[in-house]
Amino acid sequence: MSSTFGNVLHLSIFGQSHSPAIGCSLDGIPAGIAVDQEQLQAFLDRRAPGRDETATKRREADAAHIIAGVVDGHTTGAPIAAIIENTNTRSKDYSELRRKPRPGHADFPARVKYHNMHDVAGGGHFSGRLTAPLCIAGGIALQALEARGIKVMAHVAQIGGISDLPMDDMVYREADRKATLTNDLPCIDAAAAGRMREEILAARDELDSIGGIVECGIYGLPAGIGDPMFDGIENRIAQIAFGIPAVKGVEFGMGFAVAAMRGSENNDPYRVDAETGEIAVESNNAGGILGGISTGAPVMWRMAVKPTPSIGREQQTVDMDAMENAELSVHGRHDPCIVPRAVPVAEAAAALAIWDALLEDAAQR
Amino acid sequence: MSSTFGNVLHLSIFGQSHSPAIGCSLDGIPAGIAVDQEQLQAFLDRRAPGRDETATKRREADAAHIIAGVVDGHTTGAPIAAIIENTNTRSKDYSELRRKPRPGHADFPARVKYHNMHDVAGGGHFSGRLTAPLCIAGGIALQALEARGIKVMAHVAQIGGISDLPMDDMVYREADRKATLTNDLPCIDAAAAGRMREEILAARDELDSIGGIVECGIYGLPAGIGDPMFDGIENRIAQIAFGIPAVKGVEFGMGFAVAAMRGSENNDPYRVDAETGEIAVESNNAGGILGGISTGAPVMWRMAVKPTPSIGREQQTVDMDAMENAELSVHGRHDPCIVPRAVPVAEAAAALAIWDALLEDAAQR
Amino acid sequence: MSSTFGNVLHLSIFGQSHSPAIGCSLDGIPAGIAVDQEQLQAFLDRRAPGRDETATKRREADAAHIIAGVVDGHTTGAPIAAIIENTNTRSKDYSELRRKPRPGHADFPARVKYHNMHDVAGGGHFSGRLTAPLCIAGGIALQALEARGIKVMAHVAQIGGISDLPMDDMVYREADRKATLTNDLPCIDAAAAGRMREEILAARDELDSIGGIVECGIYGLPAGIGDPMFDGIENRIAQIAFGIPAVKGVEFGMGFAVAAMRGSENNDPYRVDAETGEIAVESNNAGGILGGISTGAPVMWRMAVKPTPSIGREQQTVDMDAMENAELSVHGRHDPCIVPRAVPVAEAAAALAIWDALLEDAAQR
Amino acid sequence: MSSTFGNVLHLSIFGQSHSPAIGCSLDGIPAGIAVDQEQLQAFLDRRAPGRDETATKRREADAAHIIAGVVDGHTTGAPIAAIIENTNTRSKDYSELRRKPRPGHADFPARVKYHNMHDVAGGGHFSGRLTAPLCIAGGIALQALEARGIKVMAHVAQIGGISDLPMDDMVYREADRKATLTNDLPCIDAAAAGRMREEILAARDELDSIGGIVECGIYGLPAGIGDPMFDGIENRIAQIAFGIPAVKGVEFGMGFAVAAMRGSENNDPYRVDAETGEIAVESNNAGGILGGISTGAPVMWRMAVKPTPSIGREQQTVDMDAMENAELSVHGRHDPCIVPRAVPVAEAAAALAIWDALLEDAAQR
Repeated sequence: MSSTFGNVLHLSIFGQSHSPAIGCSLDGIPAGIAVDQEQLQAFLDRRAPGRDETATKRREADAAHIIAGVVDGHTTGAPIAAIIENTNTRSKDYSELRRKPRPGHADFPARVKYHNMHDVAGGGHFSGRLTAPLCIAGGIALQALEARGIKVMAHVAQIGGISDLPMDDMVYREADRKATLTNDLPCIDAAAAGRMREEILAARDELDSIGGIVECGIYGLPAGIGDPMFDGIENRIAQIAFGIPAVKGVEFGMGFAVAAMRGSENNDPYRVDAETGEIAVESNNAGGILGGISTGAPVMWRMAVKPTPSIGREQQTVDMDAMENAELSVHGRHDPCIVPRAVPVAEAAAALAIWDALLEDAAQR
Repeated sequence: MSSTFGNVLHLSIFGQSHSPAIGCSLDGIPAGIAVDQEQLQAFLDRRAPGRDETATKRREADAAHIIAGVVDGHTTGAPIAAIIENTNTRSKDYSELRRKPRPGHADFPARVKYHNMHDVAGGGHFSGRLTAPLCIAGGIALQALEARGIKVMAHVAQIGGISDLPMDDMVYREADRKATLTNDLPCIDAAAAGRMREEILAARDELDSIGGIVECGIYGLPAGIGDPMFDGIENRIAQIAFGIPAVKGVEFGMGFAVAAMRGSENNDPYRVDAETGEIAVESNNAGGILGGISTGAPVMWRMAVKPTPSIGREQQTVDMDAMENAELSVHGRHDPCIVPRAVPVAEAAAALAIWDALLEDAAQR
Repeated sequence: MSSTFGNVLHLSIFGQSHSPAIGCSLDGIPAGIAVDQEQLQAFLDRRAPGRDETATKRREADAAHIIAGVVDGHTTGAPIAAIIENTNTRSKDYSELRRKPRPGHADFPARVKYHNMHDVAGGGHFSGRLTAPLCIAGGIALQALEARGIKVMAHVAQIGGISDLPMDDMVYREADRKATLTNDLPCIDAAAAGRMREEILAARDELDSIGGIVECGIYGLPAGIGDPMFDGIENRIAQIAFGIPAVKGVEFGMGFAVAAMRGSENNDPYRVDAETGEIAVESNNAGGILGGISTGAPVMWRMAVKPTPSIGREQQTVDMDAMENAELSVHGRHDPCIVPRAVPVAEAAAALAIWDALLEDAAQR
Repeated sequence: MSSTFGNVLHLSIFGQSHSPAIGCSLDGIPAGIAVDQEQLQAFLDRRAPGRDETATKRREADAAHIIAGVVDGHTTGAPIAAIIENTNTRSKDYSELRRKPRPGHADFPARVKYHNMHDVAGGGHFSGRLTAPLCIAGGIALQALEARGIKVMAHVAQIGGISDLPMDDMVYREADRKATLTNDLPCIDAAAAGRMREEILAARDELDSIGGIVECGIYGLPAGIGDPMFDGIENRIAQIAFGIPAVKGVEFGMGFAVAAMRGSENNDPYRVDAETGEIAVESNNAGGILGGISTGAPVMWRMAVKPTPSIGREQQTVDMDAMENAELSVHGRHDPCIVPRAVPVAEAAAALAIWDALLEDAAQR
């Protein structure tokens, strides 16, 4: 396999940067889930580039065409399939790309793996463009979760040395959500968004790129969802999140900070909530997950996104045909920072992981 | 599913802390792989507790009995199965544990998920003891990789505020490996091991526990192994690593540090190696993986391990039967720090993930 | 799941009879497999209706558009995706179909399963039209097998009381193959084809339909392919063959006839072939499979295809809204016998099952 | 994979005829399912040989030890594992078996597949003995189904030329069930059982063996269970049934007889049941399945079981080391007919397939 995900859900993603279309199929979903195509397109538009000078200038018409599985605005139980046509492909000469691998891209290992039979145009199946069909499936998952009272929200937590305000790890904040949708960059704090924007533009002006961190919260997930060992909430989110190009780390709750913590600090005490009469944690260092299973507190996770490997500066590479050293400058349109565009992708990934866990949970009740 | 792993390999782990036995089955493996049972047992012994005052004092006879799939010292193509009998179970009263969930353990979400029908004794299927069968399967994987020239090595990179020397991310160092096997704790630097030991004992003396980080390197993996999107090397390692109890973060190469990096710093340049005449990266910030596929450089990854949730101090919890607040002190034998014991488990996890990717790669050639 | 198949291969089929498109994605395939699109289209045309008065008169433009995974006439290692647009959909009123289930169709159980949210138009996802994308994937598999010297051939073995000559179960006969492609119906014996044709027309004239048997042989598969227990060649072929609408039985070699046989008759003796010097069976009652694994003899299997449930005669049904008895006549264009059109579908199914087994075998060497 | 089954359920079967133990793990099951170990053992005893002169005379102590997943008589949500120790292994010399493949057994293809590294003793992983762990898992599934009002019953429908009375395909008959458990052979008709017994003894006396057919009914399965295409009830049952050694055909409802039927005969009309007010079929030619989904009528299926390949008569084979023709007589204890012992195995297979479909259905509601 490779481009498939899910235990009960069955997501397949296909397409290359310059193939006739990219798309996905999504099997295993219940019938009768409402799918609002306008809302879906609005979600996809959050991922699309071209709205701001911090992103690539090329225009992608990421118009999702649902070609199967949805009738009269709801799922039918049959697999959903959707495609996005690649209208903006260019038939330029990619022979240099086949010869000279771009540092930080999959060009070299892909050539070895596929013994030079892979599609190199625009990065082929490894292109970040493949996150668009992930967002189609994830956008449907988000609607399914929303209908069950589960909200997923992500923001840019860090770019370079600049940090956003943290998300609340106990309560969903509608105001924070709105801020991430209206600020220059998807941040809670407008000032941080502004500083990040400058950081990105500075990198761009130096023909360079910059990395960052996306933080994501899943609010309203009831306790008891997820599975032990290899199919916990953490495993599922990590499996899909590491499928997003450029992600190099995934952590939950306190994440890597646990290394310096004592158990007495890190353990989240339980109390009976005076208001609701229900059991709740007093803190959420676990990021809402114990033993792979949700505690009822928000699931909080973060993913590290590396700086875009495509940079204008000259870089050292090799000519794989001649087997000699070579230099390379990546021209063309690329984002100096893909972290802002990764925000809806993180939400899509989280939604798919959680939906799969919820459906599997229903099987085991 | 839940306790199963692999695309071509098929690992199932079963057992509870106090069930008659724990074990695993491992299907999908080639015939004719040499399995040295002494070497396997020696590997398991690295995980077992009881050798040092930094670990729990209970003695577990983690004797692996291979009950199927291995004949005359080699695999037969039939599924391998192995069990470890739970000789040291105690039939004490676990009714308090069923009522009062231990903070930081899976007790509460498990009770909700399994509507109180789960096995609570000793943590049931959520016990860290289940890493023993993971190490059986992983130990066999390690032998299979070793036979192909692939070495896997992990060490304690950090405990509390103390760090070990970093592992070499370009070359396998036999001396470092030996050091990790002979120092007080599995560290490269004996002095760091000593300071970590003090840190652990200090936590123990305060009836507390402490977390840390395990770093693992996979040396000798050829370029071109792994799959795009959801079945890359990162996804596979993450899926299995988050199955190790207490792991809250997984990162590759520079990991979360990429957030503050520029592309020009983070990209690993290619050069033709003057000696071997092969293409190699000049640095290894990517941790040996691009687009999910190995670059030929060592695969470097780290996992964050939280402080043992079982601590002697009194903690706040609830009585789930009475639905009222309660206090809890976890008595008995537990590790003040499980990070050292997680070192061979990380090696086992890595070996299984890599073996699965290698076998799947063979299918696609 | 449901509409996915394969262990190493990963086939997803999507679409409904009247959705914008039907199609498939196929992941897990090696790079560099030649895909001849003309040959593929010619294969699809064998399944398409409209060429003969024994089949439905509607014209389906089953033009396969490969939208991903194939570049310059070969696979790239990325998932293949292909769609067929549903140009011939009709927006007639399907409300009666939603209310009155057609006997022998999935209408009733689908309504229960999907609590009336399924797509009823033209049979929705249950339509025989979904065998078209199966034939796209299978057609590519056939080309991959052919390149390895493996030929797959099926014919109509029986319709009503009329039988074709049997296929040779030891040797591939090119003349028989040609006959099946040129006779009125895909039979070896032109006379049998003629009599079957009359049988079908007789059924049609009585507003009725008729069933039959498709026999399929896989020639050139080397010994040693397949897996024990649940992933043997038999299990794989059966799993996919029962996915073809109307198939009610699958048998291998002597099949159900073994019930009346003695072991001494049924066992296939081994001899060293004087010519090739290789081990070969003297007879092929096992249909080329022992213990789920190929013996090197042709894999011979048969599938029973029920008479088309859509018939012009009045039938007894119920009105599921009114919960009262009702009558139903199925109007419109339908095949009085789908057995001939099932012949290439059987070849596609066999090719996919065998390809999956071959790829998995490569993983285990 | 190979010896694993299930979409939501996750069954792994391990062991060889003469390995220390055989067994299974079963993951993905809900917590709180009652498991009566005595009832389970009684079910296993129906499969065990040694009770009658029609079966092999060796005594197998098929005592199932549940080593994980069941506490206090119910499942816990953790994977179940169970083993049967192989007490009756014999350490005789199997070198002849490695050289001279027994006709009709997997010896030859297994040697090729596993390049002679497989376990040949007693047939290794291909032994019919592996149906014992299948019956452990299936026995638990049967109890889970029974608790939901679903009864599974099989009988010997045919041996050689002798047929039992057919099972009722509309209503579960308790008297028929009792007869199958008390007659000499598991038949409805005592006279047929007697004649079959003679047929078997006649074959035995001629140092030969004989085949037959097992018929199985699943009563009480509600309408709407199962999935379209590759995960229908038929596909699931077939996938597992072809995992039973010696099964060469599987059919549902009218099965292969549909070839000679008209649609007007074969279609099952619907009527509103006067008594229950529910929709029901008037006949059950479909064997309770349309489009892969249950209709509410009993699921009726049959499997063809070939004559035991182990026969006392001299047979032609080859010496694979010398690559020359050879003769072989299979000595030792073997069943002249395994059809009666396959009856509970068919029930186990059906129960697992149905349970998996039911659990997956719950995920999709």
